[in-house]
This record gives sequence, C-alpha cells and structure tokens, in this order.
Amino acid sequence: MIKVGILGSGGYVAKELISLLLNHPHCRIECLVSESSEEGKSIVDTFRNYRKQLSERTTKKVSALYDCDLVLLPKPVDNSLDNVPRLYEKGLRIIDMSAAYRFKHAHVFEATYGPKIKHGSAHLLREAVYGLTELYRDSLKSTKLVANPGCYPISVILGCAPLLKEQLVDPEDIIVDAYSGITGVGANPQPHFDYLFTEMSENLRPYKVCEHRHTPEMEQELSLLSQCQVTMTFVPHVAPLKRGILSSIYLKLEKSGVTIQELRDLYNDFYKAEYFVRLMEAEEAPSISNVAGTNFCDLGIFAHKATSRVVVISALDNLIKGAAGQAVQNMNVMFGVEETAGLVGVNAASPARLPEDITIDELLGTSSD
Amino acid sequence: MIKVGILGSGGYVAKELISLLLNHPHCRIECLVSESSEEGKSIVDTFRNYRKQLSERTTKKVSALYDCDLVLLPKPVDNSLDNVPRLYEKGLRIIDMSAAYRFKHAHVFEATYGPKIKHGSAHLLREAVYGLTELYRDSLKSTKLVANPGCYPISVILGCAPLLKEQLVDPEDIIVDAYSGITGVGANPQPHFDYLFTEMSENLRPYKVCEHRHTPEMEQELSLLSQCQVTMTFVPHVAPLKRGILSSIYLKLEKSGVTIQELRDLYNDFYKAEYFVRLMEAEEAPSISNVAGTNFCDLGIFAHKATSRVVVISALDNLIKGAAGQAVQNMNVMFGVEETAGLVGVNAASPARLPEDITIDELLGTSSD
Amino acid sequence: MIKVGILGSGGYVAKELISLLLNHPHCRIECLVSESSEEGKSIVDTFRNYRKQLSERTTKKVSALYDCDLVLLPKPVDNSLDNVPRLYEKGLRIIDMSAAYRFKHAHVFEATYGPKIKHGSAHLLREAVYGLTELYRDSLKSTKLVANPGCYPISVILGCAPLLKEQLVDPEDIIVDAYSGITGVGANPQPHFDYLFTEMSENLRPYKVCEHRHTPEMEQELSLLSQCQVTMTFVPHVAPLKRGILSSIYLKLEKSGVTIQELRDLYNDFYKAEYFVRLMEAEEAPSISNVAGTNFCDLGIFAHKATSRVVVISALDNLIKGAAGQAVQNMNVMFGVEETAGLVGVNAASPARLPEDITIDELLGTSSD
Amino acid sequence: MIKVGILGSGGYVAKELISLLLNHPHCRIECLVSESSEEGKSIVDTFRNYRKQLSERTTKKVSALYDCDLVLLPKPVDNSLDNVPRLYEKGLRIIDMSAAYRFKHAHVFEATYGPKIKHGSAHLLREAVYGLTELYRDSLKSTKLVANPGCYPISVILGCAPLLKEQLVDPEDIIVDAYSGITGVGANPQPHFDYLFTEMSENLRPYKVCEHRHTPEMEQELSLLSQCQVTMTFVPHVAPLKRGILSSIYLKLEKSGVTIQELRDLYNDFYKAEYFVRLMEAEEAPSISNVAGTNFCDLGIFAHKATSRVVVISALDNLIKGAAGQAVQNMNVMFGVEETAGLVGVNAASPARLPEDITIDELLGTSSD
Repeated sequence: MIKVGILGSGGYVAKELISLLLNHPHCRIECLVSESSEEGKSIVDTFRNYRKQLSERTTKKVSALYDCDLVLLPKPVDNSLDNVPRLYEKGLRIIDMSAAYRFKHAHVFEATYGPKIKHGSAHLLREAVYGLTELYRDSLKSTKLVANPGCYPISVILGCAPLLKEQLVDPEDIIVDAYSGITGVGANPQPHFDYLFTEMSENLRPYKVCEHRHTPEMEQELSLLSQCQVTMTFVPHVAPLKRGILSSIYLKLEKSGVTIQELRDLYNDFYKAEYFVRLMEAEEAPSISNVAGTNFCDLGIFAHKATSRVVVISALDNLIKGAAGQAVQNMNVMFGVEETAGLVGVNAASPARLPEDITIDELLGTSSD
Repeated sequence: MIKVGILGSGGYVAKELISLLLNHPHCRIECLVSESSEEGKSIVDTFRNYRKQLSERTTKKVSALYDCDLVLLPKPVDNSLDNVPRLYEKGLRIIDMSAAYRFKHAHVFEATYGPKIKHGSAHLLREAVYGLTELYRDSLKSTKLVANPGCYPISVILGCAPLLKEQLVDPEDIIVDAYSGITGVGANPQPHFDYLFTEMSENLRPYKVCEHRHTPEMEQELSLLSQCQVTMTFVPHVAPLKRGILSSIYLKLEKSGVTIQELRDLYNDFYKAEYFVRLMEAEEAPSISNVAGTNFCDLGIFAHKATSRVVVISALDNLIKGAAGQAVQNMNVMFGVEETAGLVGVNAASPARLPEDITIDELLGTSSD
Repeated sequence: MIKVGILGSGGYVAKELISLLLNHPHCRIECLVSESSEEGKSIVDTFRNYRKQLSERTTKKVSALYDCDLVLLPKPVDNSLDNVPRLYEKGLRIIDMSAAYRFKHAHVFEATYGPKIKHGSAHLLREAVYGLTELYRDSLKSTKLVANPGCYPISVILGCAPLLKEQLVDPEDIIVDAYSGITGVGANPQPHFDYLFTEMSENLRPYKVCEHRHTPEMEQELSLLSQCQVTMTFVPHVAPLKRGILSSIYLKLEKSGVTIQELRDLYNDFYKAEYFVRLMEAEEAPSISNVAGTNFCDLGIFAHKATSRVVVISALDNLIKGAAGQAVQNMNVMFGVEETAGLVGVNAASPARLPEDITIDELLGTSSD
Repeated sequence: MIKVGILGSGGYVAKELISLLLNHPHCRIECLVSESSEEGKSIVDTFRNYRKQLSERTTKKVSALYDCDLVLLPKPVDNSLDNVPRLYEKGLRIIDMSAAYRFKHAHVFEATYGPKIKHGSAHLLREAVYGLTELYRDSLKSTKLVANPGCYPISVILGCAPLLKEQLVDPEDIIVDAYSGITGVGANPQPHFDYLFTEMSENLRPYKVCEHRHTPEMEQELSLLSQCQVTMTFVPHVAPLKRGILSSIYLKLEKSGVTIQELRDLYNDFYKAEYFVRLMEAEEAPSISNVAGTNFCDLGIFAHKATSRVVVISALDNLIKGAAGQAVQNMNVMFGVEETAGLVGVNAASPARLPEDITIDELLGTSSD
C-alpha cells in the first residue's frame, strides 16, 4: 500500500483527491496537512459528505508527511515553493499540483506568476517531470518530483499533440476557446461575489482574455512536442456548471488535401495505447456529460475544408483528468501499479494493455535506430 | 462472483445500476436485456459515457437472463408484471424495481396503478420482501423476490421509522413536502416539453398534489411499522437539479415534553447499526450536496416546541439510495457479501460492523422473550 | 411625476427597484444614496447592465433625499432604524423595506431581531402601515410610513388570508414549507462560501428550520386577520434558482364536508378585485416560471379529504411581488396613481377596475351597518 | 397605434414578442394566428404566465391578418415560404423571422436549407431588406418585407462589422466560437431527449461543427460589408442556460502596429449613434448577465499582439436582440416611431439622439461626394 500524504486539504481538488483515494486499491491516506486549519480538526468537519467514510484529522505540521511514500500538494504556487524543496530534501516523492515546477525555465515562471513571487528552487525545475502521463510516462516512472499540469493545458495539449508532433499545422496559428466549470476558479474565488450562484446561474463570460497564465505552459509543451516555437491565442470562459472543461481548438493545416479520415487515423494511432483518451466517432461531438466524474479526455476531430482548418473539441472533467485524476494516474505510474487503478471500476473492461515496454519515443516514432 | 442480468437497460436507473456494478468487487454484469432496442446493440451506443469501460451488447431475449444468479428490473410496473412471474418460475432471484410487488394486497396495487393495469400474479405478493434493507434485512437474506421501494418512500420511511415504531407521533397527522431532481421522472418524461431545460431551469413546481402513487406505499409500510393506520398528506415537487430528494416531514408528537435530545437519542439508537443512514449533528440540516453520488440517507431532526411538531429533513440521491444503490445493498444482503460492497470506496473507514447476528426484530425490540 | 429617492442602492432588491422605476410612467429616480460607496460613484459602475439607461450617481449624503416625494429603503433593519426617524421628521413619505416597522410591538421586534438591536423609534410602529396592498389598501392611501412586508410573509399571507379571515382552519395547525431562490439571501450572503455557484448548483437545503425571523411577522398578520392567535411551523429552504418563492401551505379544516369548489369560490371571491393575485384553474399547480419577472402571486388550492387538509401552493418572484414590486404597488396606492402602473405592460388587458370606492373592510365584510 | 399580427404564436420567440408588445406604447396585438392550434384557443392557455394580461384568442385563419399594419412571422422557413408571398400580395408590411428571405440569391438559400425546401418566391429576395437595423436603417424605413436576421448572425455581424468595413482584417481568417442558451434550439427541439434538463444541466457541447446554417448568412453580410469574399469557421455550442449568446470572434489584423486604442476608437466611432450596441470599457469583458432581458448587444474588444489577432466578445439575449427585440426595433424604424420604443423603460436616460438625418452610407463613409 502506498502511503499518501496531502498538503493543503481544504479545496475542491483536495476533496476530489480524497474521493479518488478512498476508492484506490493500492494506497491509503496516511496524513492530511492543513496549515490554515486548527490542529486536529476532523476532515469531515470540512467535507461533510465524507462522514462515516473518513476518520482522518488534519494537522498543521508538515513534518507529519515525512513518513509518507508520496506527498500530493493541491495548493497555490507560493505554498509549493515554500514546501516542495524541503520535502524533496527528505527524499519524498512528490506530485506538486501548482505551476511551481511546470516550467523549464525560472524566468518564464517568474514572468508568468511574478513579479511578487520569485522562484527560489530553480534547480528543481531540471528534476521535475511534467505530469501529463500520455506524453511523459517513461520519465514519470523514475522521477521524485512531478509537476502536475494545469487543467486547461491537459485539455488542450491532448487535443493538439498529434497534429503538432507531426508538424501538420501552423505552430503560430492556434486558437483555443475554452469554457470551464466554476470549480476551476477554486473554493475561495476572488472576488467571491462574481461566483455566487446568483451571479453565475444563466451566465457566461470570458475572463483573462489572451492573458491566462496557462498560456505559456501550453506553449512550452507544444513547442517541445513540435520542435517549433508555438504561439497561441487562448481565451478562457466560465459557464454555469460545477465541473468540466470544453476546449474548442482551431488549427491551420500546413498543407491542403488532408482528409478527415487521415486526421482521425493520426489521432487513433497516436492514442491507440492510451486508455484515458477517447476519440469520438466520426462527426460525433464530445460533451461534458460524457466525461464528468471520470478520468477520460474525449476528443472530437472536425475539418473545415473551406478554410483548411482542423477543429478539435476536447472535453474533460477539470477536477479529475484536469487535476486529481491526472495526479492519481501519475502516482500509479510512479509506483508501478496498473495505470487505471482507482480511476475506473474494478469491473471495467480491461484496458488495452498499457505499453510497459514501449517508450514514449518509440510511440512517437522518434527513437533513433 | 454474482452473475447479474438487467432487464430494461435504457433509463437513468439502469445507467446508475451499471455504474455501481462496474465498481462492485463481487459481481459482474452477465446480460443486458432491452426488449425495445435492436438485437445486439452495444450498450455504449446508449450510454456514451461508458465507452471503453463496457463491451456488453443488449439482447431482446428475456431467456438470456436464465443463467444469471440475479435479475434486476429497472422498469415500469407493466413490464415487471409481464416478466417477473416467468423469471420467478425459473428459480431466479429477482430485484424488481417497479411498484408491482411492493404492496401486500393486489387491490391496493390496482387502486393505485389501475384501472388499466391488473395484477396477474398476486400470489407473488406474499413472497416478495419490501426491499428497504434497514427494516427487512433478515427477510431479504432468504427471499427470491425483492420489491425495491420507491424513491420517495425510502426517503420518507427512513425519516419517520423511529417515531412511528415507538408510536410517539399521531399516525394520522403526517405531512410530507418533498422535492425531487428531474431524473426522478425518468428518461422519457411526459409531456417532455415540461422537462426541457428551458422549462425547468430557474423553476420549481409541485405535481400530483396529494395524489402521488407513492403515498399508499408509504402508508402501508408506516402502518406496518407503527401497527396503526397511517394517513399521510404528501406533496411532491420538481426542482432544477438532476438528482436528489429532499423530504421535509412534519409529525405531531402525541405527548408533550419530549426533548430534542430524546428525539436524537431515539434516532441514534434506531440507526446505530446502519451504515447508510447518517444522523446530522444537532441543528445541522442535511443537503443534497452531501448525499449526491452516494448511498447515504442523511437525516436532520428538529423540534418546534410551540406546535409540538417534529420536523425531519431527509436527503438522499434518488438514483442511488433511492433506486440503484438500494438495489445493490439488497443484492449484497441476499448474497451474503458485505453490505457496503460496491457502495463505498475500498478504503472507506470500515463500517461499524453490521449486525449479522442481530435480527431486525431484536433491533426493533419486538422479538418475543 | 413622483420624485423617488433610494437609500441603500447596492443590493439585489435595489437593482430590481431601479429596473421597475425605469419603466414607471409616473415617477422618476431623483436620488440614489449609498452610505458605503464613494461619493459620486456612477450607479452603472455597480450595475453594469444599466449602462446607457441610467446616468445617476450615488451620494453618501442622506440629506440629498430631502427633496424627494418618497424614499425607499431596501436595507437591513439597523440602517432603517438609524434613518427612518429623521426622514419621517422631515415629512417625507417612506417605504421601508426592512423589518424595522413591520411589528405592532417593539418587544416582538426585539425578541426577533435583537438582542443587539434595540428599537429606538417604537412610536413610529403606530404610524406604520403593513404594506401588503391586498389587505391594507385603504390605510396605505394616507400613511407616511409603509413597512414593506418580508418576501415569505407576502407569499404565505396571500396564500392563507381567505381561510383565516373566514376562520375555516385551525389557527394553531399551519405548516409552511417554502423554497426560495438565492437572491433571497441577499447580495452579500454569509458565509458566502455556502452560496457559491459550486455549492448551490444541484443542491437543496433547509435553513433556520423553525427559527426564521419571518415567522413572527406571519403569525402577527394572520392573527390580526383571523382574530385568533396563530402559531405556525415554518421551514424555509434554498433551491438552485436565482429568484422565486414557492410556498406549500398545509392547513387543517375546522369542519368537515367543505368541498374544493367551495374553497375555490372563497378564494375567487376574496381576490376578485385583486389584479396581482391569480387563482389557478382547478387541479392546476402554480410554478415559479409563470411568475418570475412579474408582480403576480399565483395560488393553487388543493384539498386532501382523507386528512381534512387544504394545501395552498403560493408562487411569486421574491424580488418583485416579494419586495420591489410590492413597494411600487404600495407607492402607486400612496400617490393615487393606477395600482398597476410600472408593473404591467402598457398594453396589458385593462386590469379589472380596482375598487376605488370599496374599502378593505367592506371587501372583507366587516364594515358595520 | 400600429396594429400587429403574429403568425405562428406558440414558440419561445413568439412568447418574447408578445412580452415586448405588451409593453410597447405605439402598437397593439391585433391578431394571433396559429395554424396548428384549435380555432379560438386562448393564448393564455399556451402561455400561462400571461394570464390577466392578455385576452387574445388564436385563430387558424391567415386571412385574419389582412387588417393588420404589420405581420410578424416567428416561424420556420417552410411556413414563411408558404405565407409571405400572399401576405405581401395583400400589401401588408411583413417582418419574417425565418431565413426564407435573408439571402440575396435563391440558390444560396436552397444550398443551405434544401434540398427538400425549394424557394418559390425568389422575386421577393430583391424586395427584402436584411433586418439588422444598425446596418440597414435607411432601407428599412421604406421596405414592405424585412428578413429578420438569425440570432448568431446578429451577434457576430455586430461584432465584426467595423473591422470588415474598414478592411482591417483578413476576410478569410475569421473564427467564431459561440455558445447559445437552449431556447436557441426552439420549443420543440429534436431529439427532445438531448435538451431535457437532465441532459443539459452541468453540460456543454458543440453541435453542427462547421456546418451550421447561419454560416452562409454571416458570410453574405460580412462580404457585402467588406466588399471581399468572407469565409468563416463557425462552431456553435449549447450551454446550460435558457437565454443568451456569447460569441468569441477571432480575427487576423492585416497590418501590424494597430493599437488596442485605435481598435476601440474604431468601434466607438462606428457605433456612436447606435443605442443598442454598447462597447465595454477597456479590458472589460461582456457577460450574458448584463444583456439578458434587454435589446443590447455588448462588445468587448481585445488584442493579442503576439499573434496579431483581435478578439471580439459579443454578448446578447438570443430571444431579444437576437430575435424578438430586433424585430421590434425594425418595426419602430419601419413605422417611424422612436427606435427604442418598447425596448427600454420610459424613464431610461434619453438615448443618444438617433441620426434621423444621417444615412447609413454617410455613417459608413461610403456616400459619394
């Protein structure tokens, strides 16, 4: 049994993590740390839905995590920057769910999350593996520090990866129009007035138009994948639902004459070994209702001939595949248990056997030889 | 492994049943029968959310169920009346989720669900056990036919049982005001116009005021429990949510001077061995958000001194504790596996050991001595 | 043109008031006072939806109201207790929308809203008219101080009035189960976390069970109407909608044999001259969707023979008939303009002529001679 | 008083039209025709919310419209094609709300709405004026036949017009990602199952990806405006709200160095005389909540330097500015009453005086000189 500790146990992502861990056959919650709660507070005082299922109490002492096999940090960047270095020093394996270790370069982090926040542990950026299992499975097996991706980046990168990997689209002409459920802004949204039921029911609105901090993260990862500099126009919105992200991604084909069937074949091939990515049938659109409560990312591929554009619709549950489920998937890979453990029912059709012996490079066709 | 067949696999309850069974450690879905679908249709064509997790195909042949250990029927009464007798003849164990076998007397059934529908298998009413596990656990262990209760009755009977059992309240002065999520009206509501998003968002309305067919069912069960004739005023409403039932139950204390603490003690005592009934803290109200997605029924007990009324607030998920979860709980008891199997996470705090050796009669204090 | 000032112009009720006044043919907004805003702030900075329609700026100076014909106070009791006496001294006509002047006796007010809040202007309680137009139309014509009723009381009193006036029901056996939209808790709900979209979507919950402060207000008014001491069990709930109150009212008939037709006749008669109360057809239930955005209160009358209970379903829009619309209706009566002005379209079928020359006493049949 | 007839009075747009006309100072509803209802049915049997406000009865006889000054047709194309020609022959003024007369060429109509539907009155296409008041005000004054635009086109054309008129953006690189409330699919959506509350609550999904029939309509109008062939990638989605359209429009600047202030100046200038188009403050995003229930279209202008893209966010109420309100605005222009009549409150700040003596050509700078 993997002994898991959670540092930061009061938000929606922590709540979802606990829900998944309650159902995980190979791990148990060893320790819940909440620096802002009073010592010894019962977790069910925070999450009343877990009464009878959990008896854990939270502690303020980070040192309580030292006996865990793995520490998960569903917290903002400043908290992670404070805590990850010392947890790392103790030799603990860590999945950090903030953006603190997602960037290759501290200056990009600071340009994005600064200027008030400085990155005091830039040396760890080299150690950290970007926790998108579908792209970095092999590296995840051996790392001690995983930077769990942002919710929008997971949705968008999975949606774009095959096209960028194959350099089929213009890397400077990518438009992403995304809508998120309101848990995406956290359990303490600011200003809270804007997120009251009375303000969000029957409402839609964009926010941080072309300025969202997930943009550089997506650009970094898609640039690495395509080996070109990717620039993206990204507009996130909030919609009146609790959970889910629907990203509509518009890409420009570099050459003409690519058929929709070729595009579908490309995606089918790219994700053939991936249990948690589901390609829709031809002409079938993904929807939040099909992925809510699951770790799946559903992709629909469409082509608009008149403009040579590919439209990819990517749907996932922001709290699961976009956060807690992605972290559990990474944990499973890190600890060598089956990748779907705790994420699908024990009776779910056996996942296509995951490619234990195929490297991501082979998968992507870039291994030398 | 219990081999389970489902007869009637297209509605919201069937969908929820499948979800629970996917996660059940001791059973597997053996067979899905849908008389109205085309032969061999894949279940994931109906429920797109289950892609990759299920490969089952539906059949139109009821005979395909004959090899199962248990047949679940999430279908209307007429379908059950057609199919249950022949399944019973074959010796199969059955959980019927319609009202067909919930009544002790065929004439009450016919007065409630007739006049077009006649009860052609009244002899089975004697065999059928009313599937409210908390009240009929012992009888469920040995029966072949379970009549799974209605969603409102589960909510209301669990809310009233201690007070009626102890004859503390006037059996003819019970008012139940209940609100249900819209899955409660099924996947093919009539007239469908009334249940469109555009009609139900930002709406509330009562329906079948004092005429809902669950009323005689609740009156029967509460009368049996209290050994008095119970009469109830029951007004159901629909609210703009997908799932959940909140019942506010108003009862009149027969004697004065009963304190809220005595009432809470009574409930604590009555449900002390029941994992799936949770009493709220003093002055704490239940809410749908705490029970949605679970098999719990949360109860809040309040007293209004000035009018000698007890107010019980009962909250559950109509698709789980109010239907599919209740059926799984019954299945667990029928097949002698742990009662919480498939209904709580594998890591959930061990349920207070269920009273294997305590009969419900002992529990209710009615065992002869 | 009636010159109207609003003291307290930042909440949902103020917003609705402004919306109604924008459309009122006989009045104009003269002055908006907000003691908590900065001096000279444009009202459209608070309510962005009114851009281009309003150019008013708010002031912090209460004295700016002195030139108005009428001051409306959509504010909490403490603010009203501070401001109403001096506005009254200045000879202004006032519609106070708090509970400060709704009670006949200061001690009832203090028992309900105290102990921190003391009533320093008890002498005004004698002057204040309870602003339920349907019951106090005549008195409203000449008063300088109107205490606009609470939202639940309007819904419930209109629902009960005919039965209590005629003493047909047990005054000590009244149960009210009500659900409110979330604007009912105001624009700054505490704790705000509970009213976030993420907490209230797909949720239902009761609050202040048997302890809501509107209970004594309803009991006072129904006692006056029935000339008996009325005691009520009142349980309010919140539902996931922005606006609307649905009250399900359970009353016990004192004598048997009253038919549903007699009950309907009673209501038809009682409200025959009332434009804003609509009786549903026989067996037809009210719904929020039919009253949202209007000043109507819809009533459905049902009888449950087996228990001699009458069930009245009352639906209204909490921000309009339950607050701002009720205030405008009162204003219309106070200033002698047509009662429906600003509340129904200019082309609405002419309201049944309102009984200018019939007093409420005559209407209720209590005038001597 | 303008005597208005409505042909097709059962849907959400008809309901909204009635609501607006109830409040219009210069017109009255003369006649409601519903070919599918029984003769003489009261309109309040269809729309229960209008009880007491309307006494009109519907007739099946189209000839009843012959005495009207104006006929509005909130109906599908086939119904319009059947009825408009004979109403036109009778000399009636007509606002057709279907797509039947929106296209300049019958073959484009048939390519879009065919092949089953043929256009039997192509001669009227020359007479019809596209009813986007902001662009065709002058022509509307004298026409007898107005083709009221589609809801998405109004949102998108108002969002794009200044940039295309000035030829500042690439006419073949326009991406529109739009979300609509569910009234947008009508009162009888097919398949209705997909639009049940239970399917749409907490859901988002695209539909008709790159295939929506409003695309050619938008391309036609933007081509006319820019005098270039416009090609557009258009992806509509449904979101869980009743009303509203939020369009996020991505355009590519043809030259670099255009500042956000220049863009804002362009829009301010273009719409300076338009009451119903509101430009947001710099960096302020529109939202549905600010336009729901109004005839305003709110525009937010953003620039993404790195990609030379302009992002325009356009928000309106699909039932009002997107349909019924747009029709009333057109009616006002056709009959020479103030353009805002019936669309804003009688006390709304006087609209910037509408340029009676400025032609749209002058406004757009294209008048010869």
